[in-house]
Amino acid sequence: MYRSHTCGELRMDHVGQEVTLSGWVQAGRDLGGLTFVDLRDRYGITQLVYNMDTNAELCERARKLGREFVVKITGKVGERSNKNPNRPTGDIEIIVESMDILNQSKVPPFTIEEETDGGEELRMKYRYLDLRRPSVQKNLFFRSQLAIETRKHLASEGFIEVETPNLIKSTPEGARDFVVPSRMNPNEFYALPQSPQTFKQLLMVAGFDKYFQIVKCFRDEDLRADRQPEFTQIDCEMAFVTRDQILDTFERLTKHLFKSMLDVELQAFPKMSYDEAMNRYGSDKPDTRFGMEFCELTDIAKGKDFAVFNNAEYIAGICAKGIADEYSNKDLKNLTEWMQRPQIGAKGLVYVKYNSDDSLKSTIGKFYSDDDLRTWGERMGAEKGDILFIVSGEKEKAQKQLNELRLEMGRRLGLMDPKQFNPLWVVDFPLLEWDEDSNRFHAMHHPFTSPKKADVDRMLTGDHETMKSLRADAYDLVINGVEIGGGSVRIHDRALQQRNFDLLGFTKEEAEAQFGFLMGAFEFGAPPHGGIAFGFDRLNAVMNGQNSIRDFIAFPKNTSGRDVMIDAPSPVDAEQLNELYLALKAKEE
Amino acid sequence: MYRSHTCGELRMDHVGQEVTLSGWVQAGRDLGGLTFVDLRDRYGITQLVYNMDTNAELCERARKLGREFVVKITGKVGERSNKNPNRPTGDIEIIVESMDILNQSKVPPFTIEEETDGGEELRMKYRYLDLRRPSVQKNLFFRSQLAIETRKHLASEGFIEVETPNLIKSTPEGARDFVVPSRMNPNEFYALPQSPQTFKQLLMVAGFDKYFQIVKCFRDEDLRADRQPEFTQIDCEMAFVTRDQILDTFERLTKHLFKSMLDVELQAFPKMSYDEAMNRYGSDKPDTRFGMEFCELTDIAKGKDFAVFNNAEYIAGICAKGIADEYSNKDLKNLTEWMQRPQIGAKGLVYVKYNSDDSLKSTIGKFYSDDDLRTWGERMGAEKGDILFIVSGEKEKAQKQLNELRLEMGRRLGLMDPKQFNPLWVVDFPLLEWDEDSNRFHAMHHPFTSPKKADVDRMLTGDHETMKSLRADAYDLVINGVEIGGGSVRIHDRALQQRNFDLLGFTKEEAEAQFGFLMGAFEFGAPPHGGIAFGFDRLNAVMNGQNSIRDFIAFPKNTSGRDVMIDAPSPVDAEQLNELYLALKAKEE
Repeated sequence: MYRSHTCGELRMDHVGQEVTLSGWVQAGRDLGGLTFVDLRDRYGITQLVYNMDTNAELCERARKLGREFVVKITGKVGERSNKNPNRPTGDIEIIVESMDILNQSKVPPFTIEEETDGGEELRMKYRYLDLRRPSVQKNLFFRSQLAIETRKHLASEGFIEVETPNLIKSTPEGARDFVVPSRMNPNEFYALPQSPQTFKQLLMVAGFDKYFQIVKCFRDEDLRADRQPEFTQIDCEMAFVTRDQILDTFERLTKHLFKSMLDVELQAFPKMSYDEAMNRYGSDKPDTRFGMEFCELTDIAKGKDFAVFNNAEYIAGICAKGIADEYSNKDLKNLTEWMQRPQIGAKGLVYVKYNSDDSLKSTIGKFYSDDDLRTWGERMGAEKGDILFIVSGEKEKAQKQLNELRLEMGRRLGLMDPKQFNPLWVVDFPLLEWDEDSNRFHAMHHPFTSPKKADVDRMLTGDHETMKSLRADAYDLVINGVEIGGGSVRIHDRALQQRNFDLLGFTKEEAEAQFGFLMGAFEFGAPPHGGIAFGFDRLNAVMNGQNSIRDFIAFPKNTSGRDVMIDAPSPVDAEQLNELYLALKAKEE
Repeated sequence: MYRSHTCGELRMDHVGQEVTLSGWVQAGRDLGGLTFVDLRDRYGITQLVYNMDTNAELCERARKLGREFVVKITGKVGERSNKNPNRPTGDIEIIVESMDILNQSKVPPFTIEEETDGGEELRMKYRYLDLRRPSVQKNLFFRSQLAIETRKHLASEGFIEVETPNLIKSTPEGARDFVVPSRMNPNEFYALPQSPQTFKQLLMVAGFDKYFQIVKCFRDEDLRADRQPEFTQIDCEMAFVTRDQILDTFERLTKHLFKSMLDVELQAFPKMSYDEAMNRYGSDKPDTRFGMEFCELTDIAKGKDFAVFNNAEYIAGICAKGIADEYSNKDLKNLTEWMQRPQIGAKGLVYVKYNSDDSLKSTIGKFYSDDDLRTWGERMGAEKGDILFIVSGEKEKAQKQLNELRLEMGRRLGLMDPKQFNPLWVVDFPLLEWDEDSNRFHAMHHPFTSPKKADVDRMLTGDHETMKSLRADAYDLVINGVEIGGGSVRIHDRALQQRNFDLLGFTKEEAEAQFGFLMGAFEFGAPPHGGIAFGFDRLNAVMNGQNSIRDFIAFPKNTSGRDVMIDAPSPVDAEQLNELYLALKAKEE
């Protein structure tokens, strides 16, 4: 037997008991007559005492224990004279009577503590040591519990978890697929699923009614800090439901998760149309924890000598409260440069400062009278002490830039309360986006999304321009500015699905080759259906007020898609390639 | 709203209520004045009535409904005059007042009923229709529930579910890997995991203590009926535990699953060594629902004029009770031919018939006296009316052949009670198997399995012959002759792991390149640990007394590894291959 108790459970009640513990040496302190060792496991830390007077040989061995040695000890629980109120086991200690060293440890390359001295790269290479740190363990315990609560809630609502296949078919639509060469079917490939989309729709056709799955998905995309080539979704689909029934269902799920995991009671989720979100926040995933909403000035800011505004399709601003006195010229110059970085790409930044002494200061003071600027201020609700920031240009770009500025000012002014959670349904997205480069439409959500009922006829019969105005029965769940989930009511009619593929530039043959099975299924009694997928990694991060999903993944990959611990990907044997009927080409080709 | 109730929930209590149902048309019966339609969904079937007298137009429309049309109806619940006691909703019917056809259906290629007229290939091509059949749905609902119970139980025992990566590193050990070319790391490949083995061990090194995961695994093997290229495991690992603590833990899990899913109380699981299983049953996964155990005759059957026995390493038989009178010469000839098929490969089959009239009949009567044969019969417990079947030859082969015969006779004699579940732990497997062909040892379980403690020193220092006698701390869970799970105590010491790789024919460089990360981890305080993996697909099948795992997988692949519904795998674009720095080679090369 390796242990009678864990390192986290002994209390005053246990004093006098003989116990056996196993764990890792967190730290040791040699005080001459006594040697203390902190023994750690997943459950906590317990203090061990070795007494030089009563057992010199044992105490000598304890003195030689290194950090992260694995030991098993037997001893008596005693009351500590010097209690540690910060530790659940802080009232007791173990007077050690015997000890086995179960395994030794080299000196770890970084300290196994909350505030470690290890850099990102080193911690990833030795992820098994990084994972010993309580904060990282806490994240993964949270994730495990979040999955339990998700399954518990969805099962209680009659959802069935069905595993869909991982070796499926490659389709060029959407992001890039990872492909898997088939040995048994030479020169053919499986693809790893970007999502179980078509399979969950087929399950609806099969009458499964309420499906869910917590499932790994794969996208071969260039990675950013918050992207991983493999990620996890809570994937759901329902039949015989309206959009609002779907939203209500997943609002209940989300509320259950916040209540059970964080004891947070979320209020009813507001719904906002895509258009409204863009007009008010310049984003389809607005952080509604704070205001600083957009105010358009296009109608009143034109017609003076300021050519930039006169030529702009769109002029709008935000009002930053109470910073006029504090923001120096240099601060404003820095902020302008921040906006001009290539990531944001603004040409410049116009400000109007409503100083406390009632004076005004603006980058464009020479083009506009104080009266003009005060009129703008009135529209935007500016008071003494506020600064208006205004951007202009092509509407979509300007909105994007102003959104970035709003978020940055929100951060700077401390308006993003990490303890506050503001959920929001963004609804009524455009169905199709026209892409100038490829001269074709793209699906804003995905090719299986239904237009809103009112738009079906226009979609089937309308002209090119009409297509740009179609609304999708699609929705995103946004919390604190992060897209947590997205979904839609799906097309369940073959003709409408065919029309959508036409619009997306598929030939009839391509559509048939890639999605013939789905369109075929629609001819055998497909029910109305719709669903949603939650980004599970991201949900974990957002619920913990963190940005990086990597901290919630046991073995993440770096931004080159590498697992630096196991050193993957790696070359494979020539024989393996032969079996797969594959040859490598040099990178230079 | 599509429905107020499901098609399975209306009862006499609801009579008089106005309800809305949606579902599929299972069948229609036109009786002139009245038309009846059976409406089906996942929850059941409800009878709809259309009355020609009160609503001729609606009734006309109902007459035209085809099988599998999707309809939504509103009507009043009425009591049936002609109740159907075989159907939970059989007391009521809906007098339909209005109807929407939500979708039409072509005539399905096979009937959507328990006893379908569709062959395997057709049902797989239209799997979404096959999945409408209640028996197939029931299997998948069972699977979903089994996963819930598994997670509930393991969580209650403190196990944490951790997702391990799917894009890992290819290693030539074990079965063939599926590989995934990396676009971002040209000419390098990920592999899909055959199991999360090394990751779960690293989680133990990381202090996670009790890990589990219900997880997809992948093996690129030639497929048999009960094999799939992707399959699901209940994967588990524990630290600071003895072998018996591991076995107890998963015995509790198994008992919980049988109790909660089937209301079956399993008794304490017996343990049997590998050697004992081979000697008594000629199999490391014996079906212990029936006896007919092996009885060795090597010591007493030699020394007469029968050269086959005299030259045999091993002679053993089984005793089939009470069939002597019923088995004709022709039956025995057929059975001999059955044993001589290439799948089994016996040279012949010796029998001794102890007839009811006390006479004897044997294939080898001319070599042995009746006294000889009666002596054999005594040893084997044969009585009047029994037949002994005897095989001989090289021990391992003969045991295998006799095992096949024992199972066949068990089937023929109805000794395999499908309602009985006999679990068994098979323990103390050999650690290494000598492979004559490749002139090296193979790991019987896998290269991370620890030898039994008593064998560690012999493994570190012994000679070649000694290695053949090493016992592994490995175990299989067998139920009714099916291997449900297997696992082992692992090596957690770098030197021992290195020695194992040496014995398995790895050079130091190969071991380091492929498993350096794991051996490195063992140097930083790896705790003693061990685990198990259950075949989840197979567990589902066994619990339902079925042989094929395919019936418990929503979208299985055929024996060529193809998904015939979506037609995968398939060729990919030249551009896709270019991006991956790959070229195809012709199959003829």
